[in-house]
Amino acid sequence: MNIHSKRIKDLQKLLKREKLDALVLGRTLETGFLTGFHLDGLLMLVSRSSAWAFMPKMLLADFSSKVDFVRASSPDSLLDGVAAAVKENKLKRTAFEPETESYLRGNLWKKRGFLEHKGLTASLRCVKEGEEIETIRKSCRIAAKAIRLVRPHIKTGRTERSVALELEHVMQAMGAKGPSFNLIVGFGPNSALPHHETSERRLKNNEAVLVDFGCVYKNYCSDITRTWFHGRPTEEFRKVYAIVAGSHKAGLAAVKAGLKTRALDAACRDHIAAAGYGQYFIHSTGHGVGLEIHEAPSISTKSEESLKEGMTVTVEPGIYLPGKFGVRIEDSVLVKKNGCEILTK
Amino acid sequence: MNIHSKRIKDLQKLLKREKLDALVLGRTLETGFLTGFHLDGLLMLVSRSSAWAFMPKMLLADFSSKVDFVRASSPDSLLDGVAAAVKENKLKRTAFEPETESYLRGNLWKKRGFLEHKGLTASLRCVKEGEEIETIRKSCRIAAKAIRLVRPHIKTGRTERSVALELEHVMQAMGAKGPSFNLIVGFGPNSALPHHETSERRLKNNEAVLVDFGCVYKNYCSDITRTWFHGRPTEEFRKVYAIVAGSHKAGLAAVKAGLKTRALDAACRDHIAAAGYGQYFIHSTGHGVGLEIHEAPSISTKSEESLKEGMTVTVEPGIYLPGKFGVRIEDSVLVKKNGCEILTK
Repeated sequence: MNIHSKRIKDLQKLLKREKLDALVLGRTLETGFLTGFHLDGLLMLVSRSSAWAFMPKMLLADFSSKVDFVRASSPDSLLDGVAAAVKENKLKRTAFEPETESYLRGNLWKKRGFLEHKGLTASLRCVKEGEEIETIRKSCRIAAKAIRLVRPHIKTGRTERSVALELEHVMQAMGAKGPSFNLIVGFGPNSALPHHETSERRLKNNEAVLVDFGCVYKNYCSDITRTWFHGRPTEEFRKVYAIVAGSHKAGLAAVKAGLKTRALDAACRDHIAAAGYGQYFIHSTGHGVGLEIHEAPSISTKSEESLKEGMTVTVEPGIYLPGKFGVRIEDSVLVKKNGCEILTK
Repeated sequence: MNIHSKRIKDLQKLLKREKLDALVLGRTLETGFLTGFHLDGLLMLVSRSSAWAFMPKMLLADFSSKVDFVRASSPDSLLDGVAAAVKENKLKRTAFEPETESYLRGNLWKKRGFLEHKGLTASLRCVKEGEEIETIRKSCRIAAKAIRLVRPHIKTGRTERSVALELEHVMQAMGAKGPSFNLIVGFGPNSALPHHETSERRLKNNEAVLVDFGCVYKNYCSDITRTWFHGRPTEEFRKVYAIVAGSHKAGLAAVKAGLKTRALDAACRDHIAAAGYGQYFIHSTGHGVGLEIHEAPSISTKSEESLKEGMTVTVEPGIYLPGKFGVRIEDSVLVKKNGCEILTK
């Protein structure tokens, strides 16, 4: 059984457990996750014993040649196709996932009497398995290797943008489809903006360099941040870097299955706060990474989830001194029973 | 007045016309369109006389330094920030746009008593003006120039993927941020799949090459498709190519302000149907292109809109013979009062 058939089976078990007859899905993330076919425009219906996909005519040949475990068709109206299958198979308790739907489509489902039910596919998506882990590991290794290759060439006079492009091209040469988000390359004070937009600014002697990037490899994202000082580090940079490195280390040491994500956030945040820089750690500690660059679980002061074996998450504390510099150190890690594997190495 | 202040003023005029006090916005496409700040995570509120943006702390410094015509703040809860401003300013008839919202956030707005109102920002977005047109033109020219540069190197033995990467890199060298979608390069029978996923397949002698691509330049997308025969074209390819070229030409000749988009679709479709290939034109004729690669208006058999001066749309008829080859010819064009300007040239 391939991984996608298995996921549909897993979803069908959840339907049974939740006393639902079927789930309807309309977003590419979920339909791609369940079929391996990642193009837009499909609707899916999964019952306890079957799975259907409804799509525009122009996708049918391609889909059918790749996915033989889902019944594919191209009705004139995809919505009517779903409704007909629901009726024909007497799927009385059909649900949709409110967190995955647009306002308009969610309300269409509701009007048809479908039930709101959160978190079914999310619970499957956040725990990675089998070839999925291998793919994310490869995605992470490509990113980690790229920065090792590119860093020696980041010299005075280079623009932020030229560094971002070189990273992209090096990752693509290693098999990546492209970047997993708009790469952030920040020189000097630009490093103090966590979401700085990479610009034409040139690197000067003696200033900070922050590079936050990742790639998409076979649809799976990686995420990594490295910060260093170009030239002779100032006392303040040394101090701040050591604090962030300590925070990052404390976070990695805390990761294991069963830990509250809030506790992981605290492990990083407390270290920075104890050093007196709490107010300069202005974002959350991390997030899941997989088909999306930001996905469940979130690792913040407010999050309520716990880490599970097989989750892939980032640990990325930072300190940002406006107008001066910022330091962020980020790795993507695989949660294990008693610890973690650093994937971005 | 910069283009973004002007857009907010235009939106405020629409609010007045529609007898609304304010509009709340939560999607990056719209908040980026109104501010020029294209990062995720903002909520905006626009009343007839003011505009507010609510955002995570980590974006505030960056946003404030770039956007001085919107009141920016970082309340603990962005939703509460919106609600407080609505209350304080007695904005009784506050609306949201259902087509831009997620199911969950749309329902939050609804619960707060906000009204559903479609199409306000869409009506602004679909008609381009000033520097926006210049940016799209540049985005299109980069794409058109890239294929002229790359095409001579597409020889027997090249993989589809290597061609896609070369196009991306050439476009980036001309200033593009990256591709506007996953570039489609299809050799031989792969060209018959309109949404083929670019693969490691190598080009053989005497087969079709279809390249559908574009770039993002300063946040604006371009879209272009070129098809040719590598080697000595078969009779069938020649015939089909001529029909698609005729259809494409008929489409371009029809474009002008005031034309029903349905009539533009018909101009292309009728030409193909008259030649006996109607059943092989399996997608719509085109779509708007701008901040999104696919945006309003849609140009299909079902669409109800009319072209307006300043719209930028694609015209992209095609014929797909399963297992053999496909031909699509696509240009992005600017709608003018009495015709159009081909942008991808």
